[in-house]
Amino acid sequence: MKLYEKLADEMTEAVRRGVFAAGERIPSVRQASLQHGVSIKTVLHAYALLESRGIVETRPQSGYFVRDAVATAAALDEPRLNRQPAAHTPPVAATVDVSRLVLSTLRSIRAHDAVPLGSPYPDPSLFPWRRINQYANAIARRHASWNLIDDLPPGNPELIRQIARRYAENGVPVDPDEIVITLGATEAINLSLQAVARPGDTVAVESPTYYAMLHAIERLGMRAIEVATHPVHGIDIEALAEIIGRQKIAACMVMPNFQNPLGFQMPDGRKRQLVELLAAHEIPAIENDVYQELYFGEARPSTLKNFDTKGLVLHCASFSKSLTASYRIGWAMPGRYRAQVEKLKFLNTLTTPSVPQVAVADYLRQDGYDRHLRHVRKLYRQQASIMMAMVQRFFPAGTRMSTPQGGYVLWVELPERVDSMRLYQAALARSITIGPGMMFSMRDDFRHFIRLNYSYPWTAQTEAALKTLGELVAQMAR
Amino acid sequence: MKLYEKLADEMTEAVRRGVFAAGERIPSVRQASLQHGVSIKTVLHAYALLESRGIVETRPQSGYFVRDAVATAAALDEPRLNRQPAAHTPPVAATVDVSRLVLSTLRSIRAHDAVPLGSPYPDPSLFPWRRINQYANAIARRHASWNLIDDLPPGNPELIRQIARRYAENGVPVDPDEIVITLGATEAINLSLQAVARPGDTVAVESPTYYAMLHAIERLGMRAIEVATHPVHGIDIEALAEIIGRQKIAACMVMPNFQNPLGFQMPDGRKRQLVELLAAHEIPAIENDVYQELYFGEARPSTLKNFDTKGLVLHCASFSKSLTASYRIGWAMPGRYRAQVEKLKFLNTLTTPSVPQVAVADYLRQDGYDRHLRHVRKLYRQQASIMMAMVQRFFPAGTRMSTPQGGYVLWVELPERVDSMRLYQAALARSITIGPGMMFSMRDDFRHFIRLNYSYPWTAQTEAALKTLGELVAQMAR
Repeated sequence: MKLYEKLADEMTEAVRRGVFAAGERIPSVRQASLQHGVSIKTVLHAYALLESRGIVETRPQSGYFVRDAVATAAALDEPRLNRQPAAHTPPVAATVDVSRLVLSTLRSIRAHDAVPLGSPYPDPSLFPWRRINQYANAIARRHASWNLIDDLPPGNPELIRQIARRYAENGVPVDPDEIVITLGATEAINLSLQAVARPGDTVAVESPTYYAMLHAIERLGMRAIEVATHPVHGIDIEALAEIIGRQKIAACMVMPNFQNPLGFQMPDGRKRQLVELLAAHEIPAIENDVYQELYFGEARPSTLKNFDTKGLVLHCASFSKSLTASYRIGWAMPGRYRAQVEKLKFLNTLTTPSVPQVAVADYLRQDGYDRHLRHVRKLYRQQASIMMAMVQRFFPAGTRMSTPQGGYVLWVELPERVDSMRLYQAALARSITIGPGMMFSMRDDFRHFIRLNYSYPWTAQTEAALKTLGELVAQMAR
Repeated sequence: MKLYEKLADEMTEAVRRGVFAAGERIPSVRQASLQHGVSIKTVLHAYALLESRGIVETRPQSGYFVRDAVATAAALDEPRLNRQPAAHTPPVAATVDVSRLVLSTLRSIRAHDAVPLGSPYPDPSLFPWRRINQYANAIARRHASWNLIDDLPPGNPELIRQIARRYAENGVPVDPDEIVITLGATEAINLSLQAVARPGDTVAVESPTYYAMLHAIERLGMRAIEVATHPVHGIDIEALAEIIGRQKIAACMVMPNFQNPLGFQMPDGRKRQLVELLAAHEIPAIENDVYQELYFGEARPSTLKNFDTKGLVLHCASFSKSLTASYRIGWAMPGRYRAQVEKLKFLNTLTTPSVPQVAVADYLRQDGYDRHLRHVRKLYRQQASIMMAMVQRFFPAGTRMSTPQGGYVLWVELPERVDSMRLYQAALARSITIGPGMMFSMRDDFRHFIRLNYSYPWTAQTEAALKTLGELVAQMAR
């Protein structure tokens, strides 16, 4: 162990023991250097480590402080007391910090080469990567070089045309001029939120919600208010109406199709109700529709855009779940906020790389995207059934689960005594990853929930992993 | 002309005539629809156009308002009164909105297929694109598919190692663990600024400054204070000290090597002084070093990092000026703010595409980057001389210019009566682009300045364009 790691461990222990309390300033770099007889550089290194562990934070020109109690407890991975159940938790706006947990979960998947039940991404081997790369190579050969100016925001015109065409074919009214190409849906969501709300504003989200929504809110210094969300019907519109009646809501972020983690497809009537409620209060809706192509039903579902008469829906999506994740091609259709989003894209990352934009456009125009989609939809639907059957078989009584209508994740409610963070650790020790429920909320309502990824072809190893998980859950439920 | 364009033009004229004053609400969409007898959709379209022209802005849940006077005047492209010259302009913090002008300038380059003297980018045909694409193709063939998780922030480990190696070889002390890969330097600068300052904070910048600095400040709702900057010595350290003594400065953004647009290389002594001044006040320095490899001297110049003992320098750079612009590979070395920048990268765009990361790493490890750089350095140095000689020859008396020490842009001061926005329009009509001085400041000090790009090989067409420009300037100077 290096010197700075040793120092960081000592400080971590001191925080754990309460030597330094939440909100308290820890010794300055110079003080610590003198106290421990180590160099300034070693202390800086140790403090950086403490910070990346989520134990301290820097305040510009003031020094290092122990973070607030809840965050620190999470970072120290100490079990917290169970709070009252979901229905009774009052919907209070809260500032957000789940990104640390998410990033460390993703890292652990990489580090452990584990069974990736915790992965948020689809099995990359299902992507038609060979075909897409062929287009990319052909483009790279064809063009002597790429001029950055060619595909400045809003993006490559042919790609935009192809995206608009797919929407039109599925009955979604789209003006190609509304589309702005982004670096994945992540950037689309960030820019959309920044276009409609300001730091300090309150944003309504589903509960549980996809954590990228919480990340965007966190990064922009806004507050999230979580709205109870039904595993079949989606966000509780009556609860949302009540919240809107009580306080100012700057925006509402939802995932009406195959929500991550719940997997529901919001019925058309409810989509319309939601759009009408928000429109009546002139509240913009940010719609994350990244799973739009991965439906299990007969046809691609409607979007909030279908019911939007006022340009208040900012629709965000990408090809990362359905075609290729490594090209990072996403887009926004920001309604009346189009000019702002385009400008923010330019300011945020200048432009999305050209070759990936054109390669995806070429693939869409010339290749078998629909055939590919039919294949993965069928596969995911089958694998969802198998995963559900296996959870049924291996997990103890008291386990409940969602019924996904699309996408590739299953949401599992474990017996209430099971702490999914402890389950996460125990599973990781056996080279299995899971998505702990805490990632999907700032509240403590989902501590006994987990998310499982079923995009990977079912193998004996997956089955063994599910069996092991079931045993761990049974032990922890006792 | 379409209906919505006609309506937008009428509204523009109304603003120009003062029917609607700055800050005033324009008719609601419904009112306008009734007044003009057009559909709601047409009004929305027209208002979106007005907004993208910079004439009105939306305020969430309130409607459309005429933007403030200065912004509107710029959008209407009306000449403003000349203010007092640079030396006398009091350094007052100002909110920033130059991005609209920059984006429209870039667009006009694309639209007109013009002589690209106004381009901010190097001639893409000089990039070793064939070699780099070969690496990318080999990678795409080698790997069945890319797992997003492999190259999550901080980024691909081999690329990071190669970047660190180049710094070490040039005497810049770098810990590979400090490097975070970003989508171009644009993202690195944005994340760095967000890591150290908050909305409403004041940030010191050079004057003139590279507009991406102003964009970052604008996007994050901060205020810029411009510090007089010498064309040879760089930012006026005494003036900066005075400002710091008078008000709180959250960060200082500078470009010590081959500043865009001035082209100077700040002497080592001044770099050290700057770092020490800022360190004495615990003010972070964001160093934009994108031209680091394009020096005309004997060796790569020092960076602020060389003099940084407190981890307060956030160094940002990219390969977009020296190797390839289309791969969008940049990085930050954020000193003590490393953990924050890494986390912000994850939240902002999740990850930078993998294949470009690995392709650049392979190129750096196996190919002739240094040979390529020797070639372009020599070329740019020659072309700088030619460009300077031609400006000397074709432009009227009273024209002055910078002496670039690296990079590929020349900063030209025209006779004071010349308005570079009018020159820009007149040149564009003759298929020549230039960079108007207004892009480099929120103040009016550089209205009679232009930036010229000399990265493109000198041709008879370039010479003719310079001659035409010189004639236009001479006419306008009368």
